[in-house]
Formats: sequence, structure tokens, C-alpha cells
Amino acid sequence: MSRFLLALISTALLAGCATSPAPAPPAPAPPAPDPTVAVILDAALADSSAYGLMEELCTEVGHRLSGSPGYARAVAWALARLSEGGLDAVRAEPVLSPHWVRGEESCTLLEPFEDRLSMIGLGGSIGTPPGGIEAEVLVVRDWDELEARAAEAAGRIVLFAPDWEGYGTTVKYRGRGAQAAAQHGAVACLVRSAASVVDDVPHTGVLRYDDAIPKIPAAALSVLDAQLLRRQADRGLRIRVRLEMDAETLPDAPSANVVGDLHGRERPDEIVLVGAHLDSWDAGCGAHDDGTGCVIAMEAVRLLARLDLRPRRTLRVVLFADEEQRQTGGKAYAADHAHELERHVAAIESDSGGFAPAGYTVHADSLAVLRLAELARPLAPLGADSVSPGWGGVDISFLEDAGVPLIGHRVDGKEYFSLHHSSNDVLERVDPQDLQRNVAALAALLWLIGESEDTFR
Amino acid sequence: MSRFLLALISTALLAGCATSPAPAPPAPAPPAPDPTVAVILDAALADSSAYGLMEELCTEVGHRLSGSPGYARAVAWALARLSEGGLDAVRAEPVLSPHWVRGEESCTLLEPFEDRLSMIGLGGSIGTPPGGIEAEVLVVRDWDELEARAAEAAGRIVLFAPDWEGYGTTVKYRGRGAQAAAQHGAVACLVRSAASVVDDVPHTGVLRYDDAIPKIPAAALSVLDAQLLRRQADRGLRIRVRLEMDAETLPDAPSANVVGDLHGRERPDEIVLVGAHLDSWDAGCGAHDDGTGCVIAMEAVRLLARLDLRPRRTLRVVLFADEEQRQTGGKAYAADHAHELERHVAAIESDSGGFAPAGYTVHADSLAVLRLAELARPLAPLGADSVSPGWGGVDISFLEDAGVPLIGHRVDGKEYFSLHHSSNDVLERVDPQDLQRNVAALAALLWLIGESEDTFR
Repeated sequence: MSRFLLALISTALLAGCATSPAPAPPAPAPPAPDPTVAVILDAALADSSAYGLMEELCTEVGHRLSGSPGYARAVAWALARLSEGGLDAVRAEPVLSPHWVRGEESCTLLEPFEDRLSMIGLGGSIGTPPGGIEAEVLVVRDWDELEARAAEAAGRIVLFAPDWEGYGTTVKYRGRGAQAAAQHGAVACLVRSAASVVDDVPHTGVLRYDDAIPKIPAAALSVLDAQLLRRQADRGLRIRVRLEMDAETLPDAPSANVVGDLHGRERPDEIVLVGAHLDSWDAGCGAHDDGTGCVIAMEAVRLLARLDLRPRRTLRVVLFADEEQRQTGGKAYAADHAHELERHVAAIESDSGGFAPAGYTVHADSLAVLRLAELARPLAPLGADSVSPGWGGVDISFLEDAGVPLIGHRVDGKEYFSLHHSSNDVLERVDPQDLQRNVAALAALLWLIGESEDTFR
Repeated sequence: MSRFLLALISTALLAGCATSPAPAPPAPAPPAPDPTVAVILDAALADSSAYGLMEELCTEVGHRLSGSPGYARAVAWALARLSEGGLDAVRAEPVLSPHWVRGEESCTLLEPFEDRLSMIGLGGSIGTPPGGIEAEVLVVRDWDELEARAAEAAGRIVLFAPDWEGYGTTVKYRGRGAQAAAQHGAVACLVRSAASVVDDVPHTGVLRYDDAIPKIPAAALSVLDAQLLRRQADRGLRIRVRLEMDAETLPDAPSANVVGDLHGRERPDEIVLVGAHLDSWDAGCGAHDDGTGCVIAMEAVRLLARLDLRPRRTLRVVLFADEEQRQTGGKAYAADHAHELERHVAAIESDSGGFAPAGYTVHADSLAVLRLAELARPLAPLGADSVSPGWGGVDISFLEDAGVPLIGHRVDGKEYFSLHHSSNDVLERVDPQDLQRNVAALAALLWLIGESEDTFR
């Protein structure tokens, strides 16, 4: 009950009723338990197919950068595994996606002593001229320090070496550091990896250029190397590096979302979408970002198909192209399916990793959130029955304007930014039991929404 | 008491008396406590100079590969810090040391998919021809599997990917894998890093060639990448890599041990040596291997000098060149000081890292071990009073033939092989308090041995 009341109160607050609280409604009669949910949970928890898919993805397919041969392999793999899994109308839906290529890259410390720094170019960065860029480094901790020392930036490589205060605070330097440095005449930009651990593995991610500002190459250093340069700067040492990057952006390339349905037995035109993104960065194998999301979504529906549990509504798996760079996959899906979005009952995205399940966040009408919370009660044994207002997901966000209720599949997030976008995001970091529990939760939720009469709007 | 009895029993066992146990001796009268020890411990624990030296070493000097500019910087740094610290006759003693250079290097997975592998060439390896070596990979778990599959090795790159069963078991493939693979016609050798953690940071170290066997290039892969290739092999996939290494061995180069004395106030010709090795691998900054050893040795004697505590005997700091490759520093010291080795009362080496102090292991006459154990009792508050028979250290091992009692400074070893010879062996892994406690223990022990009448022979 207390969770229900809390949800109700937060709903009231969201609805702008904070100053005149709604009277407490009578407690709803508990819904009759659906015996099928127990069948689904038992079957999912006894099954290891999901980890088998992860092993295959991480061992045979590898990383899956938009536009790369790895992405094409991943499309072929996903089509095959969805078809074998008994889904209907499995297809690749064309998307025109970014085609950024990394090429060779390195960052060498030249002064105060020579050292090979652990770096990875940022996605979308331009390359350096042949032979690289050699320049003195200006180390700053934040925007304010850059502004205060703007006169020193010209002709230099600016390193943003902030303290870690969570991803949101640190990642802004990755996203906009190159713009800010270039505005003051810097010739290249380095950033401390947006990572929660202090180690020597650099973390990539996309940057944003502004067409009104000169584009300069940008790369992330490992946290340890960023700290080394910061200590050197703090000691007043002259720091010089050579940055070499072959990176370039080629014309957009034909790519695809992978889509497969489990046609509804009564209302096949009503669609419950479950998605994840099939692309990854080219470090590690994108195990948690977003291999586990793909596998959880695929396997939840494959499991229902294997159990011959076809809900009233259609369940649709969508593995989106290019979440990491320009979200062309999510945008293409929204555009190509505009005619049927009003019949999308909900869109669920799993893009937070494959750690222990933690429930769902929902971007929808407040009362719909409450009804989903009721629906998700049977997920309590998995710790996945927490439903609260919140973010759905990047790829499904393009369905918002059509009024589709958006649901984010949530997991324990404490390890995520230790491996995100780095070569540590690999199979070894995935726990098979956690993965199965995610499949169990999602399969049960899909069944419940697929069977429900509710439109959640 | 119980520790004393245990030590006595182990001594008796070592002396071959197991079948006729010696009668228990009367408990010795506890020695009168030396009030100076408390002064030393208090001063050391209140001081942060040692960490200051570590910061300087890791921020301004950097890594210190034998024959490199980094090693020359380290010599100049150590000479300056010992001289400033009040030691006498601080000097660089010439050594002719190996001069292996790494150059550029990379290992690229070509099949089953393209990926940049995390690698580091092994010290002493030859390079590859320009353009590298492209070959199929034969993955084996151990010597037995290589023998069983010897016919498959010809023309291939052999990867030794054993399970981790401790350093001693795993490191043999680093040391002798290239020989074993070459004997069966392999064109290059890869080894799983000899590391206790599963991450993407490769660990280097020296290899050994046999002049009777063709030399082939050899490198370590990160544990994660070795496991990736092993999984691919287990799934029957064809694996191809391109290994590129510019490594070469240049003629031996002039180098130096750094030596400084604190002349004894009564018996200056009796020497208590305390050493560590000044060279490191060129990954990270050799913080624990063996920066902390150098700093602990330097600072223990600098502290006594600052306190104006000059023992009867001379204390001698020796920072050895080239422990990592051919031990030319340790050998040169033994040869150049042969005339005075009979007056070396003891040689202590700190080369196990700078973690929490754990006592001493001693290679000496069994009764001398017991007497050292008695002497070390005042180190109990630091947890450093455990004295047992054991290994002294690589650099001081060359003093064994002259009968010098050899003492290894021991620390908590559980983290050591997670960072050893890798880019994770950096300042951030050194705990300032642990470092001070090591200085305290070693300074007190040096004082006690320096004051003692015992020859420990």
C-alpha cells in the first residue's frame, strides 16, 4: 500500500495539485492474479538462452559502430535469431545512418617526459592533419576556469580534467568541450573520460560541433592520464602532447533497424513495442550498452513465442540503428510508422545495462503511470515492480509527440559508468542470473500489457 | 611468546632436526626496549615526505626503462634527493645496462572480426618485419596443449591463454612461451597477461630467448582480449591477427646504480645495505614496482639523518639499475664492492610494493633469523614484526655467495599483481599512510641493525 500511496502523491504533485491535495481514493481491489505470469517467470529463470545470445554477440559479432561491418554483422545476427525464435515478419527496415570511422589514433606526451597516453577519439571528431598536432596543453577543471584563462587557450590543446561528480556533470565536457575550446582558439581538445572509476581505460562517446565554430579534433584520456596531466599542470610543468587521429566522417550509409513481431491473437493492430539499440561504440563489445538491452528484448519475446503465449496485442521487437550518434534509427522508426503510432499501446526501451532489474520509469499520463504500477505488481519477486514517472529511452523518445506511453526498463546502475563506452564493456561484466531476471521481468510485463484492455493514455 | 616458539620450531625444521626436536630453550629475557625506536616511529608516522617523493617521481620523472631518458632522469632525481637528505658520499656507480626500445606496436584482430587488441610487447622481444606479421592464431591453455597440437603451430601465432593460478604459474608462459612456440615453428607468440584481475590493461615483463631456438616476437594481451580469443577458439572460429612491433635491442648503454651512505658513528666500515630498484617498465610509472621501494629506502635513511640518528654502523642506500631485464645493477654492485662484502652486516631489499607492511623474510643462518626476529619485535605496532626464513630480493641475491644475510621487506601482497608491469601501476594506487608505515618500519629496523653488535652470520 505505501508504494501505491507514494505513487499517488507523486502523481498529484506532477499534475500540479500540490497546493490542494486530492482526496485519497479508496484502495483499489487487488487485481486477480494472472496465473500465466508465474509460468513466464519460472520459464525465464530456468532458461539460459539469453546468456547464450550474449556470448554469441560478444564472441562472434563484436562491436557494432554505426556504418561499420560490425553493424552489418549484427543486423544479420539479429534477423536470424529473431526468425529462429518464432517471431513473425522479421525484417530490416532501412535507415540512413552516420558513417564515422576512427582510423589509427594516438596521443603522446612529449613534455615533461615522453609517454604513450591512453586515449580514444570522440565519436564524430574530425581527424588531425597527417603527422598530428603538437602543442602545449592547457589543463582546466571546468568552463569557469577555461573562461578565466581564455587568453592562454589560443594555439594550445585544452584538456578538461574535472572532478567526477556523476555522469551528467562530467559528460558535458565530452559533448561540448571541443566547441568551447575552439571558441578561444584551441587547436584540439582532450577530456577526462566520463567514467566513475579511476583506471587506465579511456571512454569514448559522441561530441557535438557547432557549424559557427571551427571544428577541432577531440579525444578522451583515461582518468589516470587526465589526472597525471592535471598534477603536472598543478606543479607548474610545461606539458606538450602530440595528438594523431585519422578519424573522418564519410557520407551517411545505408543501415537498418531490425524489427520482428509476435502478432497479437485478438488485436494484432495494437502494438506493444520493446526496443533497444543495436549499435555500439567500437571499444569492448558494447555488452551492457546495449547488447544486454537487445538480448533482453529479443529473448523476452522469443521466450513467449517458445511458450506459445501469444497475447491479445502484437508485441514488436525493434533493435534501433544509431542510438549513439544521431539517433537516425529512432527517428526513422517514428517517421516510417507514423500511420500506426496511435495504435502503439506502449513503447519500452532497455538501454541501462543488464545488471539486476530495478523496475520501470514511465513517461505518460500520470494516471496511466499508476495503472502500469498496478499491472507490474507481479514483478515484485524480481525486484522489478517499482514503477515511477521518468525517462523512457532515447530511441523511443521520438514517439512522444504521437502520445505513445514510453517506458524505461531500469536496472541497478552503480557499475554502469565504470565500463560505459569503454573496452571494459564486455561479456565478462554480464552476470547470467541478472540477465535472466531482466528477461523474466520484461517478458512478464510484455504479457501483461499485451493482455491488458488499458490504452495507458 | 607463541610467535617466538613457532619461529624456533620452524628453525629447527629448517635445520633438519625434524626427527629429533631440540629441547625448548628457556624463554629469553626480553631485551631492554630501545627508546630511540619510539622516536623513529613517531617521527616517521607524522611525516609525509615519502609521499611527496612518490608524487614527484610519478609526476615529474615518470617511468624508467633501463637505457631510457627516463632512467637517466631518475638517476639525477635520486642523487639530488639523497644529497639534500643529508646522506654522505652520494654517487652514481657506473653499470652497463640493457638498452631495449619498444617503439610503436599494435596487435589487430582481423578474423573473426576486426578489433584493436590491448597489447604490450614483452621486454627484450625482437620486432616484427615492417608491416608486421599476419597469421592465424593457435590458442593453447598450457605447455601440454601446445605439445599435443604442435603440428598446428607452424606458421601460426601461438597464444598462451592459461587460467590464472597465481603469478608463478602464469608468468612462465611470458618468460618461455616464445621459445616453446618457436620450437614448433610459430612465427610469433602472444601470452595472457600475468595479472590477477580481469580487465583490459596488458601487463609486460621480460622474456627469455634461447640462442639455440629461433627468436620470434612476443607480446602480452590484456586478460579480456586473451579470453576473447580463447572463446573464439573454443567456438571453432578461425582467428587471424596482425602483430606489429618496432622493438629492438640496442648495444648495452652506460647506466648507474645510485648509492648514498649515512656513515656509521663508530664502525663506518660495517655496512647495512638497504636497496630497491630504480628501473621500471615503461607502462604506468612503476609506482609499486619499484618506486615505493626506492622511496621507502631513501626516506628511511633520510629520516634518520633528519633526526640526527646516526647508528654505529654505516647505512647504505643502493638504488639498483636494471632489475627488470638482466640485473646488471645488482651484479655490478656485488662485483665492484667485493672487497667489502664481508663487512656487509645485512642487505635489505624492498621490491614487493608499498602496501601495508607485513614484516621481513630472511635468507641467512637459521639462528641469525631468530635473532633478527627478536630485534624486530618493536615493529609490532606496525604489523611489521613478522620475521621468517625466505627470499631477500633479486638485486641483493648477488651478495649471497659472500655470505651477506639477505632480508626482504614484505608488504600485503594481494593487490600487487593487479597492477604489476602495467599502466595501472601509478601514484593513485599508493596509499600515503601505508607508505609512511613502511618507512617507519624500515627506519626502525635499520636503526636496530645499525646499532646492534650482532653480525647475523
